[in-house]
Amino acid sequence: MNRNSLIAEIKRKRTLLCVGLDTDINRIPSHLKASPDAVFEFNKQIIDATYDWCVAYKINTAFYESQGAKGWESLEKTVNYIPGTHFKIADAKRGDIGNTSDQYAKAFFETIPFDAVTVAPYMGSDSIKPFLNYPNKWAIVLGLTSNKGSEDFQQQHIGNHFLYEEVIRKTSQWGTPENLMFVVGATKAVELSSIRKIIPSHFLLIPGVGAQGGSLSEVCKYGLTEEGGLLINASRAVIYAGHDANFAKEAAKVAKQYQSEMQQYL
Amino acid sequence: MNRNSLIAEIKRKRTLLCVGLDTDINRIPSHLKASPDAVFEFNKQIIDATYDWCVAYKINTAFYESQGAKGWESLEKTVNYIPGTHFKIADAKRGDIGNTSDQYAKAFFETIPFDAVTVAPYMGSDSIKPFLNYPNKWAIVLGLTSNKGSEDFQQQHIGNHFLYEEVIRKTSQWGTPENLMFVVGATKAVELSSIRKIIPSHFLLIPGVGAQGGSLSEVCKYGLTEEGGLLINASRAVIYAGHDANFAKEAAKVAKQYQSEMQQYL
Repeated sequence: MNRNSLIAEIKRKRTLLCVGLDTDINRIPSHLKASPDAVFEFNKQIIDATYDWCVAYKINTAFYESQGAKGWESLEKTVNYIPGTHFKIADAKRGDIGNTSDQYAKAFFETIPFDAVTVAPYMGSDSIKPFLNYPNKWAIVLGLTSNKGSEDFQQQHIGNHFLYEEVIRKTSQWGTPENLMFVVGATKAVELSSIRKIIPSHFLLIPGVGAQGGSLSEVCKYGLTEEGGLLINASRAVIYAGHDANFAKEAAKVAKQYQSEMQQYL
Repeated sequence: MNRNSLIAEIKRKRTLLCVGLDTDINRIPSHLKASPDAVFEFNKQIIDATYDWCVAYKINTAFYESQGAKGWESLEKTVNYIPGTHFKIADAKRGDIGNTSDQYAKAFFETIPFDAVTVAPYMGSDSIKPFLNYPNKWAIVLGLTSNKGSEDFQQQHIGNHFLYEEVIRKTSQWGTPENLMFVVGATKAVELSSIRKIIPSHFLLIPGVGAQGGSLSEVCKYGLTEEGGLLINASRAVIYAGHDANFAKEAAKVAKQYQSEMQQYL
């Protein structure tokens, strides 16, 4: 999916919501457990219930890999089920030397038709550039993450700025706002304004806006652009909103709440 | 596999060699292509031919993921085929927030019986610690990689030392030499002595000792410890030594050459 199509979807539906399919086999409602592919069945019903309220789905590969080859089958079926109107993100945090990143790009852009893959920057340019060679495909590079461990390295100083700022500044020169996005943790809304000085127009993928809420208005205040410029993810808050036969309805209700709040800012 | 068993195998076989199974379906000899699982058939013959000359196998997950769910089946079969005497590394460069790294640890330590997984440090402590909770399993953290892109961030200064030194120093406090190793690019043999000052006894996984050779003696000079302390990887130089029906014999020949050179230093 190209940038213009993504922006058009955001404006049409008035939402920035990305639904995260971190589908844990142990948290699936019990009535689905007998299904031959319970993970896919769960995802299918979540997608059917939420696609009106979101523009993107993000698949956290770890939850599928933990099920081995069978998990990868559920993953492939899920991606193929997501409507073509929606932006499909492999949240995989990949990155390796050039010939290996080539293989990861092939895995997520050719073998499985994702639009984007999250990429870890530690190994530098040749680990990221292979993901930028596909038209209408995207690398989403880790900038500042929302977890406690972001203090360990990302928030250390390189010269007179933070490592995450150096990562965003340098990486943004390897691609364009048409093929690069950045992960910026929503718990760091204040830092968003300084990041917007470095990359005024790139899309940001914002994780960590959970059921706890509260930060959505700040994220929009400091991160929103004319074109939207944000994909705001909610995973557990949406997909585990309910725990029984009504789980998909409960997920839809929460997704709709997010959309309602987001349209105020758009 | 625990540290003592690994050291015992190194001393018994007098080798530090790790054979990297970066098996590219497009580089498999043509006579194997008709096999229902050509990747596994290739790996099986490589393992049969080389296990006397190495102590470890490293599976580069990207080359399997690029084949989708079928690739993961080849990967699982390969890991299960490797003898219990050998240390099994998932070269996967994973790392994410805690609940997601938990799932990656499950994928590589429970669902598939690897001994170790390579981990990217950018997201900090909670992205690495879940891999340290398994007895006799290991996290191998990226320190200094051998690629050109290592200059972009790893070799930037934080205070008066390099980022990769800070990563090694800080991360080494989260585990022990019994459950933590570090990736150190072989093309940086000079830096090995400064790294050994930070971590005198941890095992290092050294990639990038290729057919080009030459650096093995330097790596041993600066990196070797009483107990070995090095796993030296060769991938393409071994597995693609031959291109036809004799490929496994050619691989054995190259693996044996590495072992012969290594035993001089041990």
